[in-house]
Amino acid sequence: MIIDKLYESVKEKGHVCLGLDTDLSYLPEDFFKGYENIEDALFNFNKKIIDETLDVVACYKVQIAYYEAYGLKGLAAYKRTLEYLKDKKAIAIADIKRGDIAKTAEMYAKAHFEGDFESDFITLNPYMGFDSVEPYLPYVKNKEKGVFVLLRTSNEGSKDIQYISTCENQRVYDFVGEKLKDMGNDFLGESGYSSIGAVVGCTTGFEGKEMRNKLSSTFFLIPGYGAQGGTAEEVASYLTLGNGGIVNSSRGILLAYKKEEDGETHFERYARKAAILMRDDILKHI
Amino acid sequence: MIIDKLYESVKEKGHVCLGLDTDLSYLPEDFFKGYENIEDALFNFNKKIIDETLDVVACYKVQIAYYEAYGLKGLAAYKRTLEYLKDKKAIAIADIKRGDIAKTAEMYAKAHFEGDFESDFITLNPYMGFDSVEPYLPYVKNKEKGVFVLLRTSNEGSKDIQYISTCENQRVYDFVGEKLKDMGNDFLGESGYSSIGAVVGCTTGFEGKEMRNKLSSTFFLIPGYGAQGGTAEEVASYLTLGNGGIVNSSRGILLAYKKEEDGETHFERYARKAAILMRDDILKHI
Repeated sequence: MIIDKLYESVKEKGHVCLGLDTDLSYLPEDFFKGYENIEDALFNFNKKIIDETLDVVACYKVQIAYYEAYGLKGLAAYKRTLEYLKDKKAIAIADIKRGDIAKTAEMYAKAHFEGDFESDFITLNPYMGFDSVEPYLPYVKNKEKGVFVLLRTSNEGSKDIQYISTCENQRVYDFVGEKLKDMGNDFLGESGYSSIGAVVGCTTGFEGKEMRNKLSSTFFLIPGYGAQGGTAEEVASYLTLGNGGIVNSSRGILLAYKKEEDGETHFERYARKAAILMRDDILKHI
Repeated sequence: MIIDKLYESVKEKGHVCLGLDTDLSYLPEDFFKGYENIEDALFNFNKKIIDETLDVVACYKVQIAYYEAYGLKGLAAYKRTLEYLKDKKAIAIADIKRGDIAKTAEMYAKAHFEGDFESDFITLNPYMGFDSVEPYLPYVKNKEKGVFVLLRTSNEGSKDIQYISTCENQRVYDFVGEKLKDMGNDFLGESGYSSIGAVVGCTTGFEGKEMRNKLSSTFFLIPGYGAQGGTAEEVASYLTLGNGGIVNSSRGILLAYKKEEDGETHFERYARKAAILMRDDILKHI
């Protein structure tokens, strides 16, 4: 099970998931100028960051929107980034938040679990219902793939639908969590966690312990740390020592160099430094 | 407002939205063999279908999953299909069902309202909340673009989350509908409809009239007709004579040729025939 590989990686390297949400404006000016086209610039920035952080982060999350925005050239950089991660035996999460049914979902599975854009995990949106998750399950079962389904996100608007109270006095996100846990029971790894994980933001206080206990076999992908306001204390409440989830940071790591005088020329070193700081900050609070 | 252009198109050509969910297996064998690569085959199949149906369908919906599944080559065909629709002054809906926030949503807007993948409308998923719709609004206001937000879908699993009853005795999809209507009031066209539309499946009986009345300024994108089981009678309950929404059909039109003896050589003519039949079937029931 792919979840066991992620579990081992977290145990070894800490809880950081490095978000390669690479916008062109994040690239140091001189670095950008050194490349003839967008594709090469984006990919080589990612490559430098990956090379410098492989031993200090558990995995990488690639947000497809940032590449899609640059059309076919951007998506070529996205493809090369995923291929490079695979070469380096790093775990790649494709943050694509797809949510569609039947044949369409099968096509998305084909797109992101095979071929040009192959990754280890993808993120999914459950609004259309649990039959929108099912088409991915054969890949989870037979192809060492996994999914993280949106449960409770880290933005203010998460309250609009995810926090709606049902008549059974349960919130929508609690209901989604229960269903995912049930569904995940068929895909448990040796680690005790399931390859059906959940996205759980950490910006809403300290409900972490309760959720961690309730969804004991669900591995969490946790956004919201740093730039979005989540603290290491909050984050830690969703984790167990050395495991239980990964914590995403993108800008906090990719743009760490901006605060440094020689940052432009050594951006990857400052990314490494920021990743280590974050890793240790979280570990300190668990 | 782009919604007025769609409104006029429906008035003139009927309610059919032709879904270009083009899987390679949908192409007649000999046609496929005539092309050297997937990109050319997919695009030229679409081109033939478009040429033959421009005067009998209101608009086209391109489901990105079908192209993504073939990686960069598939997405190159997706790009060319959108460009061709633009050349022909046809209205294009990109069925991408994105749902993400802040900077990520801005990147998706850039990806699908500008550049390589520019379309007129995109579909959105509201699970992350209404702040996941906001980043698209500047394009709706200033760039003649529109969105269709998932409200109630046509699949069985739609009941899982969309049908949850809130304590205020309202269903999640009703709540989403109300919010969308409010949001849409700032983007009303001369037609009385808003460029913030909603996806409403027609496979759940005859609630259409009620929804059409309640969401009087919301234009509907209606999936579920034909292959998914929705009848013209059900569909018609969501429409007003000559307007109020568009009804999607993909396989029912693209694969109409499979039932005909000479279908393989004249697939586009049978697509046209099927589109006309569908258009008239719906009109008869309104």
